[in-house]
Amino acid sequence: MNSGLIPSDQLELSPILTHITVMISDDSLAAFRAILGEKGFIENPDDIEPWVHDWRGRYHGTARAILAPATTAEVAAAVALAAERAVPLVPQGGNTSMVGGATPPADGSALILSLRRMNHIRAISASDNLAVCEAGVILSNLHEVAEAIGRRFPLSLGAKGSATIGGLISTNAGGTQVLRHGTMRALVEGIEAVLPDGSIHYGLEALKKDNRGYDIKQLLIGAEGTIGIVTAASLRLVPAIADRAVGWTCVQTPHDALALLRLAESTIGKVVEGFEVLGDETLTAVLNLLPGARCPTATRSPWHILIEVDLDSLEGPSARDRLETALGAAFEQGLINDAAIATNETQAEEFWRLRESLSQAERSLGPALQFDVSVPVASMPDFMIQAGKAAERAFPGTSTSSFGHLGDGNVHFHVRAPQGVDGPLWIAESGPVISAFVHDLVVVAGGSISAEHGIGQMKRAELGRLASPAQLHALRAIKAALDPQGIMNPGKLIPLASDT
Amino acid sequence: MNSGLIPSDQLELSPILTHITVMISDDSLAAFRAILGEKGFIENPDDIEPWVHDWRGRYHGTARAILAPATTAEVAAAVALAAERAVPLVPQGGNTSMVGGATPPADGSALILSLRRMNHIRAISASDNLAVCEAGVILSNLHEVAEAIGRRFPLSLGAKGSATIGGLISTNAGGTQVLRHGTMRALVEGIEAVLPDGSIHYGLEALKKDNRGYDIKQLLIGAEGTIGIVTAASLRLVPAIADRAVGWTCVQTPHDALALLRLAESTIGKVVEGFEVLGDETLTAVLNLLPGARCPTATRSPWHILIEVDLDSLEGPSARDRLETALGAAFEQGLINDAAIATNETQAEEFWRLRESLSQAERSLGPALQFDVSVPVASMPDFMIQAGKAAERAFPGTSTSSFGHLGDGNVHFHVRAPQGVDGPLWIAESGPVISAFVHDLVVVAGGSISAEHGIGQMKRAELGRLASPAQLHALRAIKAALDPQGIMNPGKLIPLASDT
Repeated sequence: MNSGLIPSDQLELSPILTHITVMISDDSLAAFRAILGEKGFIENPDDIEPWVHDWRGRYHGTARAILAPATTAEVAAAVALAAERAVPLVPQGGNTSMVGGATPPADGSALILSLRRMNHIRAISASDNLAVCEAGVILSNLHEVAEAIGRRFPLSLGAKGSATIGGLISTNAGGTQVLRHGTMRALVEGIEAVLPDGSIHYGLEALKKDNRGYDIKQLLIGAEGTIGIVTAASLRLVPAIADRAVGWTCVQTPHDALALLRLAESTIGKVVEGFEVLGDETLTAVLNLLPGARCPTATRSPWHILIEVDLDSLEGPSARDRLETALGAAFEQGLINDAAIATNETQAEEFWRLRESLSQAERSLGPALQFDVSVPVASMPDFMIQAGKAAERAFPGTSTSSFGHLGDGNVHFHVRAPQGVDGPLWIAESGPVISAFVHDLVVVAGGSISAEHGIGQMKRAELGRLASPAQLHALRAIKAALDPQGIMNPGKLIPLASDT
Repeated sequence: MNSGLIPSDQLELSPILTHITVMISDDSLAAFRAILGEKGFIENPDDIEPWVHDWRGRYHGTARAILAPATTAEVAAAVALAAERAVPLVPQGGNTSMVGGATPPADGSALILSLRRMNHIRAISASDNLAVCEAGVILSNLHEVAEAIGRRFPLSLGAKGSATIGGLISTNAGGTQVLRHGTMRALVEGIEAVLPDGSIHYGLEALKKDNRGYDIKQLLIGAEGTIGIVTAASLRLVPAIADRAVGWTCVQTPHDALALLRLAESTIGKVVEGFEVLGDETLTAVLNLLPGARCPTATRSPWHILIEVDLDSLEGPSARDRLETALGAAFEQGLINDAAIATNETQAEEFWRLRESLSQAERSLGPALQFDVSVPVASMPDFMIQAGKAAERAFPGTSTSSFGHLGDGNVHFHVRAPQGVDGPLWIAESGPVISAFVHDLVVVAGGSISAEHGIGQMKRAELGRLASPAQLHALRAIKAALDPQGIMNPGKLIPLASDT
């Protein structure tokens, strides 16, 4: 049985040991079934099948059963049993990981622990601006419930119809509203979790001040289920949007784009909630993809910007007036020479549809390697230009593009295959060397090889290659201290000895 | 020599072992001196004396030397040597701890490592809203440097003339601006630190998005120097105050005070930066203390409120207009029936002087036990009333008061001695039982026994008594994993086996 970090290392090296470790006994399965009941124990292969692959079809695992507890007490009992019998568990929410973070090992050595039945919003309060959600609550459900009481939960992303609160916390999810409201970390006020020994960490109280030592909540956020299973959280709500204005403008360089953001924030305050940047070539691909779509501005420049201003109250100038003030100041400073402000909600949605079609449009340009990277905000304009040039020079025939959340120092950086090559073959052959090249550029710029998607399986080896000795030691020491048997989400996040 | 958590437990139990462990060899001292030079190695007892007691004179230690490295490399070298020779270190900044967190052990088994020579502001940028400060930078110095470039660092407290950035981070300091800007945790964007093995964690880059596993930065914030020494940090700056209005009003109950805050935030936005609450009896004590001071309002009610509105820009209604709007709405709802708004800066400072004299005025009312506690904000009004009544009932002759940061769910709760008793004797005899009583009430209310001062030596045993098994286990496991020899700030924060 897989009983710790060191055996898990050996798993990769020794096929024979692998064979020995995969056996989860029938007796153990029966014990889990006894704790969780028929509804909480899924062993029909057809019911398991959809959950052992990631949604993009890149990672494939097997599992003899899915454990589906309905309460925190059941999670605790299941984890305690797993600890007793050294059965590894892979926590899973909506299975929307971009890095294979929720896919079980291929050798069947682990069970999936699904939080989807824990989908209750335990409490919600407009006066306290708080919602207490179980881990399996789907993001879009929380959006609806918050809206019904005149509040909103200001984090959203493409997978909102599947992604769950527990997964969003465990991956410290981002999205398009981070600029104003922060990542998931900034929105979690309290956490309830089951630790690897089956004990329950009770921390749902939303305390604005609490200095009782190491912050377990902060440690669990972004831990990818490797040191505990988040079962519920207290989440911060914000006022509903009282007034909104969406604009489109274009600039000559990413530097001008960042200058525009700074100018806007200094003239109209911290009310810019959306600030998405894309290159003109990418926009062309979007316009080719969407029938009837057109560029909102009459003139085109090399870089386009979607900008949204949101107000919580109707106090002071309107959102539109503020956006006009900001754009007017940018005209005066010569940063922009054309801009459009949506005149109604339909037009605003059309502007956003251009942004939301970017990934699909990029795919239409051919096979590409995609990087989710961040650098300090002030360095991002240089990075966008220089990294693109450097990659195109190093890998002749490739072309690059970057788009996304410039104001967060986080763009999605793509390296497209040379014209005419076989896509899958090119990715298989050139992927590792191009990835290493791009990640090295990120490290030189003081950035992160994972801005918002996490490490999972996909970036584990690269983290092992690039993390500082101090960081690697701390990651491994904390993992070993809290999960000495290595039963929590094995093979994710923590670089193995063979990775470094 | 003290070589880990278990020996450290035994220290308390075995005086003989204590005697054995105190010896730091002359050879070790010479090795530290060789690394740090004459300026970085203080062994004159007169120069050491001011730093081995806490500023309130409650904790007394001894140390054969103070190590005073001038650079991160010197800190790393000193810690590596300490690890090699198992010499415990007590990190120290301004020595302003309220809980004995920076006082060395009495047995002389540790050396002080002072960060005060690391007092450079390495970089500051108005456009990036960032300052990179070494650990020994004094808070008021940062205030001045930020002001000089049209920005401010929005955290302040009484000890700002002595407290250092490293200590403020290691204790996750609070203050009167937390309502709007958060505690130190919300203002730290990056950290450089030396871990207990002498390795350096390089994390100064201010990345808005970074999902590379457990957040070492968050773990070090509030860790009280027990798992590493913060050597520098990137700190968030905010715009200078463009417009300010300070008001005073009074209400019948703490519930009305909280309703007033919520009403203000919903009518004029998140621009309330100060919201301090005090009882009428406490105000009377302040007025008796300060010659010529008077209550800003003509009428008096049981509870008084100082409220400050701060604007970053001159966009929209003025701070005074907004405060009038909020107070006007409160009049209409019958929450208040009198209010005053300072007409100039001198008057505003007079209002604040009343607040800042509270601690001194409370002392004039006689000996008291003081508690720095928090509960969820919505529960604080009930807590203020019920905890006061319960303590007065349980300990006849005592009287209670609470004042401070209602909007953070954090008040300073005082239990005053019965009239005529010997203060020190009463504190010695009744202190432990009254403390346990108050802390139990806090736990029942879902709160924290340390809102902003930390655990240090003072609250370690109470944390051991009251923390959940899961929390205690996590604290001890992380400490043991990162500091296996127990050389970082021994005796602080982590409850010993004998405490539980």
